Amino acid sequence: MDLAEVVRRLELENLYTAYAGCLDTDALESWPEFFTDDCAYRITSAENYDSGMPLGLIYATSKNMLKDRVSALRQANIYEPQRYRHLISGMRIENDDGSGLAVTASFLVVRTMQDGEMILFAAGRYIDRVVRGEGGWKFARKDVVLDSRLVDTLLAIPL
Amino acid sequence: MDLAEVVRRLELENLYTAYAGCLDTDALESWPEFFTDDCAYRITSAENYDSGMPLGLIYATSKNMLKDRVSALRQANIYEPQRYRHLISGMRIENDDGSGLAVTASFLVVRTMQDGEMILFAAGRYIDRVVRGEGGWKFARKDVVLDSRLVDTLLAIPL
Amino acid sequence: MDLAEVVRRLELENLYTAYAGCLDTDALESWPEFFTDDCAYRITSAENYDSGMPLGLIYATSKNMLKDRVSALRQANIYEPQRYRHLISGMRIENDDGSGLAVTASFLVVRTMQDGEMILFAAGRYIDRVVRGEGGWKFARKDVVLDSRLVDTLLAIPL
Repeated sequence: MDLAEVVRRLELENLYTAYAGCLDTDALESWPEFFTDDCAYRITSAENYDSGMPLGLIYATSKNMLKDRVSALRQANIYEPQRYRHLISGMRIENDDGSGLAVTASFLVVRTMQDGEMILFAAGRYIDRVVRGEGGWKFARKDVVLDSRLVDTLLAIPL
Repeated sequence: MDLAEVVRRLELENLYTAYAGCLDTDALESWPEFFTDDCAYRITSAENYDSGMPLGLIYATSKNMLKDRVSALRQANIYEPQRYRHLISGMRIENDDGSGLAVTASFLVVRTMQDGEMILFAAGRYIDRVVRGEGGWKFARKDVVLDSRLVDTLLAIPL
Repeated sequence: MDLAEVVRRLELENLYTAYAGCLDTDALESWPEFFTDDCAYRITSAENYDSGMPLGLIYATSKNMLKDRVSALRQANIYEPQRYRHLISGMRIENDDGSGLAVTASFLVVRTMQDGEMILFAAGRYIDRVVRGEGGWKFARKDVVLDSRLVDTLLAIPL
């Protein structure tokens, strides 16, 4: 590992930190900017992922679809008293094929309600492809693979 | 990012790790040593923080006030069977103004009771100013911003 | 901190990430490979650890004993619908005696059941000795020190 590799790794950690910060501050309008124009994004269960089922709870094949998702969320939600906190750990560069990197990381999302009640909201693994463009590192693909088999169908928020 | 920046970042990660370790091992007498003499420290809610309310659940404007807080805690507590575990992730250097750094990080605190019961105790964000002195990196300011709006008024421990 | 130290630290983070990934993907047959042949491994409570009690809930003094443990787990478990997610943070090199490193880290394990129920399963601290051999960094000793005093006696899985 030379300095360039060290720097690349810290840049990727910054990417995940900024991604989590975007979601935790409810800055959803900035969320699509973490992705390439022709990105693939989905939220799925570990079981579906392992069995190769293509679809997911959220499934998008472009940045524009992510923007539509945000618009829909903003129109649907009247008032959202809860806050989310993403803890991301164990980021790992699995592969580098020259044009992009396969990166995985573990996440835990804790939800805090207005009355102070806290719950474990979601846990799982990001299985991502990241590429470097003019705007820095972006997600060309992000599979949010939940540890839970059953997924709350009301869960419509990005993870 | 050059080697000096990489090293600085890892030093800051060490600072947060040592800070969490201090609290998790109940070494509260060492806790004020993470701060500058004229530090500002508070625990507040996200709502209060966002609306610019200055005070908090804990509010101190010097290292000596932090020492007083520890003394008060030691006198008040007869026996404390619980343990706390801080998970800190997503540390990020937001700004460098030449004399200090604005640093943020996410935290989750889990409390384990003597009988084995575990609860999500607190989640939120550190919004800090760190400066480098003779004793290494110290917190000149630390805002512990809880995701919860309501805060358990018995919560008197440092976070 | 020079580049060699930076690289060493990131290598160690990779070790912990790979260790967590091994357990979270239920790749238990690979778990003993994270250890040296004459390793010591145990799971114990903070109380027992602090009072110097040698034994633990799981106690092994060689890699072969770890392999036996995995075999026993595989034979005992009929069907395991739960998934575990390890969040490791706060890794810290405590000491370097020339032949190995004392390393500590905090962990939180969240368990997700098939029906989606999530619980805080375990929290605590790894207190490890790591050494570098031909196969890279390995654990020569790993004390898994749980924050809980009481430990569920059914807990037979590696942590």
